[in-house]
Amino acid sequence: MFRNFKMVSKVVFGRGCFAQLGDILQEKRPGREAVMVFLVDDVFENGRLIDRLPLNDADCLIWVNVDDEPKTDYVDRLTRQIHAFMADRPDALPSGVVGIGGGSAMDLAKAVSLMLTNQGSAADYQGWDLIRQPAVYHAAVPTLSGTGAEVSRTTVLTGPRKKLGINSDHTVFDQIVLDPEMIADAPDPQRFYTGMDCYIHCVESLTGTYLNSFSRAYGEKALDLCREVFLGDPADGDDRLMMASYCGGMSIAYSQVGICHALSYGLSFVLGLHHGIGNCVAFDTLEAYYPEGVREFRQMTARRGIDLPRRLTAGISQEQMETMLDVSLMLEPLWENALGKNWKTVMTRDRIRDLYLQM
Amino acid sequence: MFRNFKMVSKVVFGRGCFAQLGDILQEKRPGREAVMVFLVDDVFENGRLIDRLPLNDADCLIWVNVDDEPKTDYVDRLTRQIHAFMADRPDALPSGVVGIGGGSAMDLAKAVSLMLTNQGSAADYQGWDLIRQPAVYHAAVPTLSGTGAEVSRTTVLTGPRKKLGINSDHTVFDQIVLDPEMIADAPDPQRFYTGMDCYIHCVESLTGTYLNSFSRAYGEKALDLCREVFLGDPADGDDRLMMASYCGGMSIAYSQVGICHALSYGLSFVLGLHHGIGNCVAFDTLEAYYPEGVREFRQMTARRGIDLPRRLTAGISQEQMETMLDVSLMLEPLWENALGKNWKTVMTRDRIRDLYLQM
Repeated sequence: MFRNFKMVSKVVFGRGCFAQLGDILQEKRPGREAVMVFLVDDVFENGRLIDRLPLNDADCLIWVNVDDEPKTDYVDRLTRQIHAFMADRPDALPSGVVGIGGGSAMDLAKAVSLMLTNQGSAADYQGWDLIRQPAVYHAAVPTLSGTGAEVSRTTVLTGPRKKLGINSDHTVFDQIVLDPEMIADAPDPQRFYTGMDCYIHCVESLTGTYLNSFSRAYGEKALDLCREVFLGDPADGDDRLMMASYCGGMSIAYSQVGICHALSYGLSFVLGLHHGIGNCVAFDTLEAYYPEGVREFRQMTARRGIDLPRRLTAGISQEQMETMLDVSLMLEPLWENALGKNWKTVMTRDRIRDLYLQM
Repeated sequence: MFRNFKMVSKVVFGRGCFAQLGDILQEKRPGREAVMVFLVDDVFENGRLIDRLPLNDADCLIWVNVDDEPKTDYVDRLTRQIHAFMADRPDALPSGVVGIGGGSAMDLAKAVSLMLTNQGSAADYQGWDLIRQPAVYHAAVPTLSGTGAEVSRTTVLTGPRKKLGINSDHTVFDQIVLDPEMIADAPDPQRFYTGMDCYIHCVESLTGTYLNSFSRAYGEKALDLCREVFLGDPADGDDRLMMASYCGGMSIAYSQVGICHALSYGLSFVLGLHHGIGNCVAFDTLEAYYPEGVREFRQMTARRGIDLPRRLTAGISQEQMETMLDVSLMLEPLWENALGKNWKTVMTRDRIRDLYLQM
């Protein structure tokens, strides 16, 4: 059985195409009273972006904070806020949700668009194919590239008990607006860490046991583009990085991430480390498993003058360590993809602890 | 203005995934009386494929003949045949149309699915965005790879006055089933010519003036895969060729084909030459315009022991030549993509005649 992969319905790519967002959304507004919800990363709150948002009078603009990675209770809160906003409107639901930001902001937009039509808490849907009702129309404008969130069928959330995505065909965006100019101002090291998320997940998928030719083609292209961007200095680096992220996300269709992501999820859950940097910290310890990838990663790190944080696990309690191990071990498909069906004979709890202690 | 590119809704890729077609279509059948129309290339009529088709009692199986490239009146005839088939059924329209075959069979499936819901003749819609009503659900199973028809927003048809596609978002398939085992039996030179369609259109798009980074990423990957397949002998050549075709098709999103396709359309219109072979014949004369591409193409031709047909235009009438020139010159975006806005100063009618006379 191969997954019948749901694709993003519409993609617009090009320098300056953000200016087309208004026309694109217009088609989705049934009338003048229609409400479009904008969830925008609050790093843009005091910038010039607000003047470029195609806001109608009836629309709802919410600045979202992603200093912490998206949590299920934050999704629930945003969903209630939108329901409250809609309370005295003619329509019960907004015409759409637009996420503008990096992976976290896009994940919030996906999750909120799902929770507007599905009962309960986002935490109830962490897992695979638990969503029953289609989401409201949802679109994304990435302002940071590398996560692949723009094309993936998941929205990664930290819940009360686990960090795990809402994986569903309904999660996939209806529209993505890929404008390389929108990522031009992303600051290092954030740009680097997010780019490395793409590089690392392609190394993991290309060396994994789940791979097929569809995912290989995308993964190889994403790696090539990452190399061009981070080992060279092409004039169109933003364009290439944006395509690397897109291809990296597509490569997950018939593959899976691996050891690094499994470890990184534990780091994020316990230490609140952001996904991109967590991946970099974890990957740097994995030369035994991804020798070529780690070597090239270190070249890119050195070339970009990035200092990875060290000794992150030095002061943590035993309980925190055990939680980190639990969260990481929960991600069975990732371990199986990396190490095969008998991964438990290779990767013991103690071996993972050793890896965490190196971080 | 960048095109807001409509993607195929669902893709399943994998060796043997054709076996999932029945389950995939089942979701689209509203009840037991629902009719699914299968348009299958008649080269399979006496083979084993028929036993594998997921046919219900109510379904309509039509063997389509693509000895000639698809014509608008053939589309009209098939559409009438299906309307007649539906005449005494509870539903006015079938639940879907499934095309199984190469680029021509897929184009027929696209065109028929459109014409079932749009009045008049297919010839009325040759052009850009002339279609008003959405098509019925339509799916494709390629049995030959290279055209990119599985992901494109066009269905190329020869009409009474021109060879030109029905270009529309509604043309795009709802589902494609990419099973490399389905192309394993494609015979040479057909497999080669169709593969070269992909190679050539990527050379044209990558050297064209319309290109952006989205299309470049796809075009480069398609070229890499073509090289692997036709200059090497990888064990998974069918998988790679299938992905080359897919990537090649996607690369057209923000690019355009060029001189070779413009010439090839004329050859097909007047001489009835199939698209793939027409491209090969035309490309072989274009060393001045695509020097590296033509050189590599000749390497692949030699390596595969392909003898291109020669002296095709030797015996044609003056009237045929003029028609060929008219059809070719009509394709302005192709010429402009290849040679820039001032293409008419570079490429005169006489210059094109010279090229045709070399074929």
